[in-house]
Amino acid sequence: MSTITIKQLAQELNLSAGTVSKALKDSHEISAETKKRVREMAKDLDYVPNPYASSLRRRKSKTIAVVLPDIADSFFSAAIKGIETVAQDKGYHVLVYLTHELSYKECSILNDFKSGRVDGVLISVSRETTENHHVNELQANGIPVVFFDRVLPEINTAKVVTNDFEAARIATKHLIEKGCHRIAYLSFSRTLSISMDRLEGYKQALCDAGMEHAIDVVFCCNDEDENNRLIKEALSRQSKPDGILASAESLTIVAYHVCHEMGIKIPDDIKIVSFSNLATALILNPSLTTISQPAFEMGESAALLLFKSLEKNNFVLEGEQIVIPSVLMERQSTACSGVPGTELNA
Amino acid sequence: MSTITIKQLAQELNLSAGTVSKALKDSHEISAETKKRVREMAKDLDYVPNPYASSLRRRKSKTIAVVLPDIADSFFSAAIKGIETVAQDKGYHVLVYLTHELSYKECSILNDFKSGRVDGVLISVSRETTENHHVNELQANGIPVVFFDRVLPEINTAKVVTNDFEAARIATKHLIEKGCHRIAYLSFSRTLSISMDRLEGYKQALCDAGMEHAIDVVFCCNDEDENNRLIKEALSRQSKPDGILASAESLTIVAYHVCHEMGIKIPDDIKIVSFSNLATALILNPSLTTISQPAFEMGESAALLLFKSLEKNNFVLEGEQIVIPSVLMERQSTACSGVPGTELNA
Repeated sequence: MSTITIKQLAQELNLSAGTVSKALKDSHEISAETKKRVREMAKDLDYVPNPYASSLRRRKSKTIAVVLPDIADSFFSAAIKGIETVAQDKGYHVLVYLTHELSYKECSILNDFKSGRVDGVLISVSRETTENHHVNELQANGIPVVFFDRVLPEINTAKVVTNDFEAARIATKHLIEKGCHRIAYLSFSRTLSISMDRLEGYKQALCDAGMEHAIDVVFCCNDEDENNRLIKEALSRQSKPDGILASAESLTIVAYHVCHEMGIKIPDDIKIVSFSNLATALILNPSLTTISQPAFEMGESAALLLFKSLEKNNFVLEGEQIVIPSVLMERQSTACSGVPGTELNA
Repeated sequence: MSTITIKQLAQELNLSAGTVSKALKDSHEISAETKKRVREMAKDLDYVPNPYASSLRRRKSKTIAVVLPDIADSFFSAAIKGIETVAQDKGYHVLVYLTHELSYKECSILNDFKSGRVDGVLISVSRETTENHHVNELQANGIPVVFFDRVLPEINTAKVVTNDFEAARIATKHLIEKGCHRIAYLSFSRTLSISMDRLEGYKQALCDAGMEHAIDVVFCCNDEDENNRLIKEALSRQSKPDGILASAESLTIVAYHVCHEMGIKIPDDIKIVSFSNLATALILNPSLTTISQPAFEMGESAALLLFKSLEKNNFVLEGEQIVIPSVLMERQSTACSGVPGTELNA
């Protein structure tokens, strides 16, 4: 790193460190001529202010943390892109932490932030997380937290989510309208609020259609092989599903593999809708009907809220809630037999 | 952030700040009993050492930066996952910066690092980058840099790459063996070394088969619509390609869309191979033959090299080069007409 300290710079200039510091901050107390001398010498000596020294003075790190379960997922990678774009504009730095869906990792990561490493935190909690204390402690330490997508409902702070209940209801209704009678919901969590909201939306659509009896939830997990087994089991049942609502693209990819393997034809034998932002949805075999989440916009909005709270002392995050709706993109995986695809409209 | 300073902690304990600091560092100069008292009081008062204060003392930030073009790409998201896993083990923090393929952004990002914000840098350069000075300056400031995937060949430091020349040669040979006579190479850069290495491998395979005359390179860009236009143009030619080697999955996705739109059948009318790590390669329409890059391993190895140089003063990065080979995964997009797919072997 740059080895020139402000003291050395001051020596070279025959000025006090305080004067040099003020000059570099363009203080009105310093003459234009002195400022010029200081700036030139700073440039010649390639002086760069030490960010940690100034963080210490300002008690600000100009750094935010993004804590999320996974990055190899089209939703989260797009969300980070949205966050990073805002941060670059604001001149902030972005630390990225992956919990790999483990709540103990999430706790230890957040615990470290109490030290003041970051000015604020954007988080989408792990599949396992049910406790609030790790987030509460952070807030108690005066570090603002904004949730995006996967929230902890009890915690009173800003949240940026999509309309999970309504999107799942619409997707399920879509499957019913396409003639499905036994729709399975592939869930990735028994506790996560968005997963539960989607479950409720799914149930609502079945009730609205007088199909309460047909509620069929397959709770999947973190392990791909186990999910493969669970889905294969569901599709081997006597009265197997003729429709699937998948709560995560990773589960949809497994479901496609299982169908290909078992010779179950999509959409003729089974129709599939998935929460997903896959760039390849349109060119899958068959093209996938998705509930496309506004991933980039959700990351962007969450970051904007956090920076607002960092820049405006009077702005309170409590109670702020932004809901950005998802969109159903109808494609071949839910087409009626013999009906041409809708790729080009999608 | 935690408001208890080491001074306040010392006051509470009626000890000197120095003694407390040594006790927390488990120094042999301090009695077991005192250490116990200090640790207990630190716990009671929820004392957390300020990372910037210790960074300043140690001149170490325990933070590394990962600079890359994009994150919504299966290669880079998997690579970050590899990097992040190693960093978590080592107790380091990971700052992620996206250049969005713009070299001026890359320069300003690296310039900021001179301040000592990070102890080391992992970088995969932007499509535009041809200059070395921004990386040289960083090294001159004593900040170690390790390249992964997209390297600057002239810079003498550790590089972790895949066998781009050989992988492209094998993929092109594969297309020739499947009966392609006019193979187009979709390139994403006119300057980037890996893109050029792949181009050379492609040319080599054509020469080996006595097909020098058939060299056909389509240089694509950053803009998806423009790439769509370029590929459509290539596939509308009198003697249009019957094979495609795509240097990036983003170009393959566009090529699939164009083929679907123009009614060009894959693999009957045209066969496609792509450098890609798409999780959905196997369920595309048709399943995609890929050159699968060891993305996670490349990120992991690059991070391990960087930490080695940070932890061992005597370890020099210069001259270190790790090549992790890519693997050709043969699937339906290059199958001979009427030949059953190889999904299950893939």
